[in-house]
Amino acid sequence: MRAHGGDRQGFLEEFGKEPIDFSANVNPLGVPEGVRRAIVDAAASADAYPDPRCGRLRAALSAKLKLPPEWILCGNGAADLIFRIVYALHPKRALLPAPTFMEYGQALRAAGCAAQYHMLSAGNAFRMDDSILKNIVPGIGMLFLCNPNNPTGALLSKGLLARVAARCRECGVWLVVDECFLSFTRAPGQESAKTLLEGNPRLLVLDAFTKIYGMAGVRLGYLMCRDAKTLEGIDLAGQPWAVSSLAQAAGLAALAQDGYVKKTLKLLAGERPFLRDGLAALGLRVFEPEANYIFFQAKDWQLKNSLARRGVAVRGCGNYVGLDDTYYRVAIRTRMENEILLAAMAECL
Amino acid sequence: MRAHGGDRQGFLEEFGKEPIDFSANVNPLGVPEGVRRAIVDAAASADAYPDPRCGRLRAALSAKLKLPPEWILCGNGAADLIFRIVYALHPKRALLPAPTFMEYGQALRAAGCAAQYHMLSAGNAFRMDDSILKNIVPGIGMLFLCNPNNPTGALLSKGLLARVAARCRECGVWLVVDECFLSFTRAPGQESAKTLLEGNPRLLVLDAFTKIYGMAGVRLGYLMCRDAKTLEGIDLAGQPWAVSSLAQAAGLAALAQDGYVKKTLKLLAGERPFLRDGLAALGLRVFEPEANYIFFQAKDWQLKNSLARRGVAVRGCGNYVGLDDTYYRVAIRTRMENEILLAAMAECL
Repeated sequence: MRAHGGDRQGFLEEFGKEPIDFSANVNPLGVPEGVRRAIVDAAASADAYPDPRCGRLRAALSAKLKLPPEWILCGNGAADLIFRIVYALHPKRALLPAPTFMEYGQALRAAGCAAQYHMLSAGNAFRMDDSILKNIVPGIGMLFLCNPNNPTGALLSKGLLARVAARCRECGVWLVVDECFLSFTRAPGQESAKTLLEGNPRLLVLDAFTKIYGMAGVRLGYLMCRDAKTLEGIDLAGQPWAVSSLAQAAGLAALAQDGYVKKTLKLLAGERPFLRDGLAALGLRVFEPEANYIFFQAKDWQLKNSLARRGVAVRGCGNYVGLDDTYYRVAIRTRMENEILLAAMAECL
Repeated sequence: MRAHGGDRQGFLEEFGKEPIDFSANVNPLGVPEGVRRAIVDAAASADAYPDPRCGRLRAALSAKLKLPPEWILCGNGAADLIFRIVYALHPKRALLPAPTFMEYGQALRAAGCAAQYHMLSAGNAFRMDDSILKNIVPGIGMLFLCNPNNPTGALLSKGLLARVAARCRECGVWLVVDECFLSFTRAPGQESAKTLLEGNPRLLVLDAFTKIYGMAGVRLGYLMCRDAKTLEGIDLAGQPWAVSSLAQAAGLAALAQDGYVKKTLKLLAGERPFLRDGLAALGLRVFEPEANYIFFQAKDWQLKNSLARRGVAVRGCGNYVGLDDTYYRVAIRTRMENEILLAAMAECL
């Protein structure tokens, strides 16, 4: 039930070899060299406890984001912060779009909070629209929005985001906007909820190094909120040393990797239409991709296993609320890998 | 209030330089070379998500501990597991010795559980005795024991441990035995609660790589329980990727460092009495040390600051329940460092 993409060890045990992995949405360029070197350098002094306040990393993030350091809390990946948010703010009832990233629901379940779903419709390409507004009512304690949404890739318009945030504030609803994949989109700055932080102490914006900087194994995410008291409560909902010293060093190095991010966006600008068109040419229903992954529907609900037998891992989406086994998500990778995926799929279909 | 030892960054900001650090109880031999190399090697593939089940690491732990892998759950340091335990099993009321490691109380507070204290007395050198048994009653949901205790260094006798475990089982109390410092003692195998696991599904035993393998910055701990269902619940109380791929690689390498552990115990066998006697010769009340740290009382409640101005960090114990600012804890380190500590203290006192 808790199965996610990126489970290379599980794949290895089931299919006898490491996959070519399209099931996890991580930067296809791999660990940036500067980040790798920072980890190597930090390893020798990893006997010391990590700085529980992540002081240097938060200062660097503050400069990059142009937000005060007191508005930033670092975590052991964004997933760590999702659990802390739920434990600390403990909404009795929360609203979740469906489908969306599964750990929001898992964190709510773990904390004994009820989840209520706002179903996105296939007919509308699973895009969010103003119909969500009427479901934001007093008594809903928290709303999670993933922008762009995982697994669908749909982006929320800035206008709708502002209307949702205003409505949440009116109704006393904590709004958590997860922007872990926003850096992969074409205009991340314009679409971010970060610009709404100042006016809204009920807004929590989540981002991660994990995906954009190819650091999923290192674990590093951060949360932004203009209310330092709220962040302090979320911090106290977990251990003081959640972010390893290796992750703090890696994060500091990552923030200097502007060239790497530019190269990533350039690669995606070419590969996104290439893979989208390639999948569409196979007769699949492809949803417009905005980030570094593509969501599609096949008639074949055995596609995941057929591909796995060929050494290719894709994310079957049957365990998302609101989807079934005909939906799939694949990461956009390098041209060579994308061609392997398309060839394997052509064989299977 | 949440201040712990090992806060090098905080020390740097307050006193303008990195401390010679006796405030954190980490192995004085530093990161083992094999562990450092494992981190270096793992850095290049840290773009992949970590194995959420820590399969290889748990298999290696299983072989080392002679326990089934299903009895083992890995976490982002023992502190991560303490919070997960409390969130998952959610005792209404828990019993804690005082003084003891502060994160038990913090986790209980975070989860909205009440803590009740069993006060250890200075007159009895803060040693646990059978008087704890009468406080273990139905209605107490959980008892935390730290063995040897942090910060006092007192070891629990195997007989008392067995009586406490039996009493907990009778009363339906979850017993969490934290053995994070047991590997530093003279007879860790004999004193471990691990041997009681098979007969008691209410027993949870916690251990860590952090201290004994000099990996506090890497973060890696594990929990043992014979009831796989209980462990599954504790696992689901947090994110699936809590243990980084770097920590998993480091942990695998650490388990092969038998020589390093032997060398550590040999060093402690010499330095423990050296530092104990040196502190006693300064007129301090020194409590018999069992692990890699020494707990003592001074008349001077300004000692921590006086030492800090000399570049030496010690753990002032004033923020432990049951202690005041006249109590201190210092790590046992190498001869040269221990001599620096004693000289600095001689100057201050």
